[in-house]
Amino acid sequence: MSPDGLYARGETPRTVSENAQLALLLEVAGTPKPGNVDRRREYPDLRFEHLLAGAVGARAGLAAAADGARVGAAFERAVAGMSRQSAGNTQFGAVLLLVPLVRATAQKRGALTPEAAEGVVEETTVEDAVDFYRAFDHVDVAVGDPPEESDLPDVRRGSGAETALRNRGLTLADVMAGSADRDGVAREHARGFERTFRAADRIADADGPVADRASSAYLAALASEPDTLVVTSHGPETAAEVQRRAALVRDGETDAEAVASELVDRGINPGTTADLVAGGLFVALERGLEV
Amino acid sequence: MSPDGLYARGETPRTVSENAQLALLLEVAGTPKPGNVDRRREYPDLRFEHLLAGAVGARAGLAAAADGARVGAAFERAVAGMSRQSAGNTQFGAVLLLVPLVRATAQKRGALTPEAAEGVVEETTVEDAVDFYRAFDHVDVAVGDPPEESDLPDVRRGSGAETALRNRGLTLADVMAGSADRDGVAREHARGFERTFRAADRIADADGPVADRASSAYLAALASEPDTLVVTSHGPETAAEVQRRAALVRDGETDAEAVASELVDRGINPGTTADLVAGGLFVALERGLEV
Repeated sequence: MSPDGLYARGETPRTVSENAQLALLLEVAGTPKPGNVDRRREYPDLRFEHLLAGAVGARAGLAAAADGARVGAAFERAVAGMSRQSAGNTQFGAVLLLVPLVRATAQKRGALTPEAAEGVVEETTVEDAVDFYRAFDHVDVAVGDPPEESDLPDVRRGSGAETALRNRGLTLADVMAGSADRDGVAREHARGFERTFRAADRIADADGPVADRASSAYLAALASEPDTLVVTSHGPETAAEVQRRAALVRDGETDAEAVASELVDRGINPGTTADLVAGGLFVALERGLEV
Repeated sequence: MSPDGLYARGETPRTVSENAQLALLLEVAGTPKPGNVDRRREYPDLRFEHLLAGAVGARAGLAAAADGARVGAAFERAVAGMSRQSAGNTQFGAVLLLVPLVRATAQKRGALTPEAAEGVVEETTVEDAVDFYRAFDHVDVAVGDPPEESDLPDVRRGSGAETALRNRGLTLADVMAGSADRDGVAREHARGFERTFRAADRIADADGPVADRASSAYLAALASEPDTLVVTSHGPETAAEVQRRAALVRDGETDAEAVASELVDRGINPGTTADLVAGGLFVALERGLEV
């Protein structure tokens, strides 16, 4: 705790973990974000309030990352906290993206770069991989079967994969690299957080309320690549359709609200793209975005 | 920090300060809450995202209250944190209500009663009063001129009132009692948190999404007494009109969405009633309300 009376009006910035928590909240406040839960649309079993509770619960793990905990341990803690609500998985991917970004920021505050975040990923160990798998004990995450040729244990084994991970000497960076072709968040870890930083630039360069910028950054990202969660849950053709329609919305050629309602009705939730926006919001906040 | 791997699926409750932060977030998620910012309505200079940032910033002070900090010191810290966004005052009254409730809960977890909260208020000292006034240094709060007969320093003096408070030996409980007739949050401190606990019962007894329950509890409270912030900002006649119309909405005799839009258009924000709902949500969460 800081000493009493330390804070003068407007003089203290938010902490790194406060910015990470705020990024989770601003992400879900952006509307419309076709297919996602946002403040105007929700699923019966995944409501706006569940994502609020997820952001509340994730904070302690994000703070642990800022305070120097191992990336995997901080991630597992954040997921455990996030899971303390009745909807199950709310922000698993967003937290997986945020933890190395928070760690990179805390190590070198004021200069959050792709290189710094890459450095955090490269330094991960087998312990971090074991922690990552253990996080799957806390919550059911939508993942497909691993490809035949993969040498990674199925993440759904959770802590049961520990021996396999240790025997093969797999680090968290190895796990992310091995999942990069089918998971958009793992791809960020493996490829320098390129889309996350692009989303951050879009958010920083835009005008107006931050929630509106989050919505625009989401549409831009969704129009640029297929959402890997949609690929996992509905197949590549649906993901390609969603991408095309997001481009139409982005270009003003179709109505965003109508597409948003239809995707929710069909249960098509491009959650990986939302995760990228949460990461982008964090980077933008750390670089001075005002709320 | 707790040791790694402590958390098994679904086994750990939220901490007291997490429930307090979640209460702030669920309050603003409830819709419609005529006149308030909610997830469907906002003011140009007081947006939904500002209340999210306010809840993020308030957490550390709420955690300090849970960890045993003096009530006034925790409150000032929460307000300083809440103020780290560009809209000024977002949740001053809600935080003022939450801090003694958090303190009472932390002292005796599992048995949050009006008596426990009253006990916290009764134990406050002149130091707490000084802290309370200092909180006004961080943010502009809508308050009227104190009545001629009041022996309390004007809160707008902020830390400048310290000598007067010390000379008169005024505790925070004295300050709250002296403001009770014109401020609905001070009235809760002075009168056993009666309306807060009534809101908690309403929320606990209702069914459905928590955000919907927050909306219903808000309407019930608004229909039962004039909102003191509306009295301060717009006068007693407007407050009486708002109360009457809230009763019509509650009884299904007029359209909630239409009233909500009209009040926002007229800039009539019954913020004290929203504060009561935030307090009620916290009490309900501590008593086992599931999200």
